[in-house]
Amino acid sequence: MDDGKLGETRLGWVGTGRMGYSLASRLVEAGCDLAVYNRTRSKAEPLAELGATVVASLSELKDREIVFTMVAGSDDFKEVVLGPDGLLSAPDAAPRIIVDSTTVAPQASAQVRREAAERDVALLAAPVSGNPHVVAAGLLTFVVSGPQSAYPEVKPYLDLLGAGATYVGEGERARLAKICHNLLLGVVAQSLAEIVVLAEKGGIARADLLEFINGSVMGSMFTRYKTPAYVKLDYSPTFTPVLLRKDLDLGFELAREHEVPMPVAAAAREVIQAVIGRGFTEEDFARLLDLQAQASGLELVPEDAPVTDGLGELAEAVEAATGTRR
Amino acid sequence: MDDGKLGETRLGWVGTGRMGYSLASRLVEAGCDLAVYNRTRSKAEPLAELGATVVASLSELKDREIVFTMVAGSDDFKEVVLGPDGLLSAPDAAPRIIVDSTTVAPQASAQVRREAAERDVALLAAPVSGNPHVVAAGLLTFVVSGPQSAYPEVKPYLDLLGAGATYVGEGERARLAKICHNLLLGVVAQSLAEIVVLAEKGGIARADLLEFINGSVMGSMFTRYKTPAYVKLDYSPTFTPVLLRKDLDLGFELAREHEVPMPVAAAAREVIQAVIGRGFTEEDFARLLDLQAQASGLELVPEDAPVTDGLGELAEAVEAATGTRR
Amino acid sequence: MDDGKLGETRLGWVGTGRMGYSLASRLVEAGCDLAVYNRTRSKAEPLAELGATVVASLSELKDREIVFTMVAGSDDFKEVVLGPDGLLSAPDAAPRIIVDSTTVAPQASAQVRREAAERDVALLAAPVSGNPHVVAAGLLTFVVSGPQSAYPEVKPYLDLLGAGATYVGEGERARLAKICHNLLLGVVAQSLAEIVVLAEKGGIARADLLEFINGSVMGSMFTRYKTPAYVKLDYSPTFTPVLLRKDLDLGFELAREHEVPMPVAAAAREVIQAVIGRGFTEEDFARLLDLQAQASGLELVPEDAPVTDGLGELAEAVEAATGTRR
Amino acid sequence: MDDGKLGETRLGWVGTGRMGYSLASRLVEAGCDLAVYNRTRSKAEPLAELGATVVASLSELKDREIVFTMVAGSDDFKEVVLGPDGLLSAPDAAPRIIVDSTTVAPQASAQVRREAAERDVALLAAPVSGNPHVVAAGLLTFVVSGPQSAYPEVKPYLDLLGAGATYVGEGERARLAKICHNLLLGVVAQSLAEIVVLAEKGGIARADLLEFINGSVMGSMFTRYKTPAYVKLDYSPTFTPVLLRKDLDLGFELAREHEVPMPVAAAAREVIQAVIGRGFTEEDFARLLDLQAQASGLELVPEDAPVTDGLGELAEAVEAATGTRR
Repeated sequence: MDDGKLGETRLGWVGTGRMGYSLASRLVEAGCDLAVYNRTRSKAEPLAELGATVVASLSELKDREIVFTMVAGSDDFKEVVLGPDGLLSAPDAAPRIIVDSTTVAPQASAQVRREAAERDVALLAAPVSGNPHVVAAGLLTFVVSGPQSAYPEVKPYLDLLGAGATYVGEGERARLAKICHNLLLGVVAQSLAEIVVLAEKGGIARADLLEFINGSVMGSMFTRYKTPAYVKLDYSPTFTPVLLRKDLDLGFELAREHEVPMPVAAAAREVIQAVIGRGFTEEDFARLLDLQAQASGLELVPEDAPVTDGLGELAEAVEAATGTRR
Repeated sequence: MDDGKLGETRLGWVGTGRMGYSLASRLVEAGCDLAVYNRTRSKAEPLAELGATVVASLSELKDREIVFTMVAGSDDFKEVVLGPDGLLSAPDAAPRIIVDSTTVAPQASAQVRREAAERDVALLAAPVSGNPHVVAAGLLTFVVSGPQSAYPEVKPYLDLLGAGATYVGEGERARLAKICHNLLLGVVAQSLAEIVVLAEKGGIARADLLEFINGSVMGSMFTRYKTPAYVKLDYSPTFTPVLLRKDLDLGFELAREHEVPMPVAAAAREVIQAVIGRGFTEEDFARLLDLQAQASGLELVPEDAPVTDGLGELAEAVEAATGTRR
Repeated sequence: MDDGKLGETRLGWVGTGRMGYSLASRLVEAGCDLAVYNRTRSKAEPLAELGATVVASLSELKDREIVFTMVAGSDDFKEVVLGPDGLLSAPDAAPRIIVDSTTVAPQASAQVRREAAERDVALLAAPVSGNPHVVAAGLLTFVVSGPQSAYPEVKPYLDLLGAGATYVGEGERARLAKICHNLLLGVVAQSLAEIVVLAEKGGIARADLLEFINGSVMGSMFTRYKTPAYVKLDYSPTFTPVLLRKDLDLGFELAREHEVPMPVAAAAREVIQAVIGRGFTEEDFARLLDLQAQASGLELVPEDAPVTDGLGELAEAVEAATGTRR
Repeated sequence: MDDGKLGETRLGWVGTGRMGYSLASRLVEAGCDLAVYNRTRSKAEPLAELGATVVASLSELKDREIVFTMVAGSDDFKEVVLGPDGLLSAPDAAPRIIVDSTTVAPQASAQVRREAAERDVALLAAPVSGNPHVVAAGLLTFVVSGPQSAYPEVKPYLDLLGAGATYVGEGERARLAKICHNLLLGVVAQSLAEIVVLAEKGGIARADLLEFINGSVMGSMFTRYKTPAYVKLDYSPTFTPVLLRKDLDLGFELAREHEVPMPVAAAAREVIQAVIGRGFTEEDFARLLDLQAQASGLELVPEDAPVTDGLGELAEAVEAATGTRR
């Protein structure tokens, strides 16, 4: 731990799904005092071996100073905080700060924020950029909004959890920032499909084009970790077209509310809709590639090239540069 | 120099514009035997102080084994190689390999390739991803096509020049790959404009949104080095909308030739056309932001936040990770 | 009147705004037995001189067999039918059929439909295509949905009101059809702006291009009646961009519900959003032309050519062909 | 014939394909003095029975005052006029006016125009809007450009050929106008596909939606004559996606030359490209409907509704209104 004091704050964690578990373990391994709750307790148990306290009910977290939540969606998040057995259910005590990284609708978050504020509990919205592999590589980032005074206390823990956090203001702004992130993601996913197919029809292997793009100024963690899917045609779901469309739809709602035209995002959204319309609802949104190939008269076959998601290499580079494990 | 043998090959360099000068100096500083020609000789002179030989005519490069060319465009490139005083003008001798990083049309490159092949000279097309700042940070990458047998000889020098090279096959495929790269660039530039304006109308400072995006899985060198322009509204040209449109038009010509629909690229292209139609032909394509703001009823003002193009930090990280200066 | 029996049915009319007045007068002039209600009674009074009965309250229409409604929007429509003084407020009597041509949301219409059905009152949704000029020329058309058994009774009156009606099935399908119509309208409006500006930059007067288009296979009443606006640059509102966007938004809601991608409509929608974003909320959506011209570096000036909306000529042609006044 | 003098001018006609034959016969039937040439003479022979003179070589048309040309494309048009046996091949005589309705590239037309002008021959470009069915209904329209002084002489014959002509200025402007027309056509074709599928998924038969649209302010000859194809799923070619794309590509070339963004046309163009990419190159562009249905998870089946292309009815209406056969 960078700073011995980090271990003095009593922390809580709610939700040990795939990402939540991985994140919580980073806090425990860094020496934090962490109490963990998960609806299915067995999934949280292994954290006890690392040094966490696993509790049986949410109310046992009422005296934790900062509680992190990462659950399934808006309804679960409201239940966890405002429910009859939720974090605010004890009349005498409650966490000072709740940090939520669940994917929730801005309205749900705003409702929780209001009710929490009445109990003098600060809610920080803290959506993330990344998937479980990104977490494992220590490269997850957070975007945070809510009471400014609460942020400095939480920031050191977010730094332990990943590769950094950005505070973007009061209220639900972090939710907006995450939606903007996903608008860009949808656009880039389709643009990659377009250029990969164009290049392949021009005689360039997908692995080669993507190696070039990944090393170029346009390369991102996203282009790198989608590379195996686009090369190997592995469409096992990391994020379905239906979930991506949900974020785009939310983005367009906000764009209409704020009077912002989005021509490129709109074009991407209709292609994603066509992936869904053609029935690819359960697979990864990387099916965009498949649709693009069909529209170009190209039959795709998996390529045999050795490719990685680039995250291991990047994690090592960052570790070397900063001298710390991520 | 990684490998003492690199200094034994006699190299030539044609074109010491801003990027060419910077690249040539990297070879000299690495101990290569380099002869340099530039039409305006004075611009090449400082390389002599570093150890290069500055020559007065292209014909003096005829006995160089590998000659790199980086000139203004298709016409200059043809003149440099095929002209009456060009690299192939001496009947008795010629370089074995020419490596061209000029932005040229595939047709022009193909013509030079054919005529060079008749003299047993291999032409490697080697377009780059990056701008002079990227070169300076040692992060330039190359995509290469042409005779496969020539590539291994050239690869070590490309590694000295930047952060890596990808070989994508015979002929003009590297030109195609570069056009694909720029299609993605145009799309991302507009998508960034859309989300930055949406976020700002929702109360998030541009510097904050871009800090989040840059650290997120969507962050790229491109998003990082455009950040100062989008935050400070500095539209001094690095790449004009007219040049970007030229690449997109070339991309659409190829897309039609290969029967590939490009819905997202098409949407981006029309927005870039609108930037030109509104008269912003001489400034940077970052004017996309301005157009997007106007279409959203948002008056942009420069933000006072401290931002960098992220290249210095990245160069340090890579240096730390690899133990070499880039 | 084509058929003497048409005069025997007791009809009611609610709403004598610009279009409603014009339509109601057609029924009276054709010899129908019509009782009329309007919130501001004075606006309905002139119909009395033509032979209509002007009533002071909605409840006085309870014994009319068929009542036509054309009011301001969803709320007014619900009030007119379901309100405490509405058409269904009398416990002992109610119209057998209500024919609504108000622009209402499908949900509102469905609610009224349900409650009407409980009283054995059939609701026919009957949105229209046209504006007051189209009504005056006798060229308005209807699209109708609701109980199939009620349609044949109503059809002869719709024929009196304009140039025809199409029955498209049960429930709210006519509302969907109208939204489809307006999606096409938005697309054509922007496409016209694009080609008019392209032609003008190529040296063709707007009046000339539109004369050609209007006479061509692509010509429609819509292209004809927008011609004066596009030639004279008269942007006084017939339909604002905000109202058009509302219909497009409704169209996209339905497209998402039915899993239909709409690439061309999406492109049009973002341009219309940009018209709004630039502040043209109160003028006609013909401002699309202006935006398109600005994006093309073209300064528009009103043209002095003699143009008409083409409706008078068309009405005469139809009259000549059918031998009836429309 | 409206005017006895029309029969005094010596006319020529080149090209008796399906449309050319039909048009030429209208001139003969109206009493014009017409000499006809077709490469395959047998196709022109039936016109002799109507009263035309069928000639064996183009040079026999040298003393005709006005010659109409309607051949296969740019190359044939150049050959017909400028070729060694062409209309201008006799040194002593040539037609005063050539009226061309071939679909040719503006450059080819401009070349012929220049060479004709040197012989004091006026070239009027006169592209048409319509297909053979539209010709047969007397509803074809022309858009004309070229020497203004030649237009009044030709206008009466264009009126005989169809339903009117619009003069849009000097040079190749009529070609531009026709390209604009086809840009709109491509956009409307795809927009119709979008709304027809949306409506069908919402429970409305295609025949019903199109009946409503055709009678509405959005209805055009185009929407009417495509109705049978969209209802019956008859994709036998009237205009292939490849030909439509050619016109759109020409439109985008001109749009780039004139600096005009075309967002809606661009979206339509990429969908048309996808129809081609999926291999539908030989069928009608109405395949857009099929693609749209697939992208929406809708299986189309032909509908059994009685539909017509609406042209007969329209022709009758116009005839009734004007008192003349069209």
